[in-house]
Amino acid sequence: MKHRLTDQLAFLAEIDALKSVVRQSTLVDRSRRENSAEHSWHLAMFALVLADDAGGLDVGKVISMLLIHDIVEIDAGDSPMHGVQDKAALAVAEAKAAERLFGLLPNDQATRLLALWREFEAGETPEAKFAKALDRLQPLLLNTLTGGGTWTENRVSEPQVCERYGPVIAGGSRTLWDHARALVRRHFAQAGR
Amino acid sequence: MKHRLTDQLAFLAEIDALKSVVRQSTLVDRSRRENSAEHSWHLAMFALVLADDAGGLDVGKVISMLLIHDIVEIDAGDSPMHGVQDKAALAVAEAKAAERLFGLLPNDQATRLLALWREFEAGETPEAKFAKALDRLQPLLLNTLTGGGTWTENRVSEPQVCERYGPVIAGGSRTLWDHARALVRRHFAQAGR
Repeated sequence: MKHRLTDQLAFLAEIDALKSVVRQSTLVDRSRRENSAEHSWHLAMFALVLADDAGGLDVGKVISMLLIHDIVEIDAGDSPMHGVQDKAALAVAEAKAAERLFGLLPNDQATRLLALWREFEAGETPEAKFAKALDRLQPLLLNTLTGGGTWTENRVSEPQVCERYGPVIAGGSRTLWDHARALVRRHFAQAGR
Repeated sequence: MKHRLTDQLAFLAEIDALKSVVRQSTLVDRSRRENSAEHSWHLAMFALVLADDAGGLDVGKVISMLLIHDIVEIDAGDSPMHGVQDKAALAVAEAKAAERLFGLLPNDQATRLLALWREFEAGETPEAKFAKALDRLQPLLLNTLTGGGTWTENRVSEPQVCERYGPVIAGGSRTLWDHARALVRRHFAQAGR
């Protein structure tokens, strides 16, 4: 038991580093870019509030997935959505990171969290699809609230936004995408003035 | 439904401000002080990993409590543990903040999250006691990993640490406090050299 707790606290100390992984999106007040730890908290809150209405989902599982989904970035870094990237190399780096980081935990928990992370990555179960939808919806919302954010920075057009966010958000919830689509339309209409 | 989603997203945008509430504890690498949003993520991870072994707890409820427990700080600010404070005035400010912030949500969710926050604050149910224990354990762990952290800054002695952290952590889990007590003993033994 003592050894178990020592390993658990070593893992919890190690993942403190997620607070230093900086993402592209800024906070709503634009004071700075957000980090992956606070982003994960925000996403878990999205799930707590929005999964209620999604019907038939295991909300606790969605929340757990979102809490752990970015932990691999401690080793593999954040991969900006609107940049060029070697997806195969990234997948290898993230898989290796997941094994090292979750591997700090006692075996039973390491196995369970590794499986949960892989389920999220695969994006096939209803919970994984919904979690991935929220992981797209949150930066979309931040961009519409900050005058375009990463879209403006990267010269991303309205059709590109629809292509990059639409299928993933609609894959989790058609209602969410219909609403998000309207926010995107309004943003680009105002930006074009 | 559309109005419901508008209110939910307005709440989720408003609580982005928790990322700008700065706490006393620093990150493990001491690069800066942590904010309440990333602290809440870290605590939810503590629950995901440690509540497993606590037995008979509703882990999902503990996680939800920890995700929302500091949201009132957006209006009421963070109250440092080792400072002098007017506890009655703080309780009034936090209760008012909870009503305003959770009140942004649709009525059914506002009622539910307000009740969950009040359950955490009251600290009487097993889930609230465990959540409060983790809310003490996390800064204790950070302090032992950063050469004393807020204890050194505020000249807090070993007996004061035991008095301020012990009952709350032991109230959630005797095993956690026994382990934490040993970490505290080791820290002060090394600091006294």
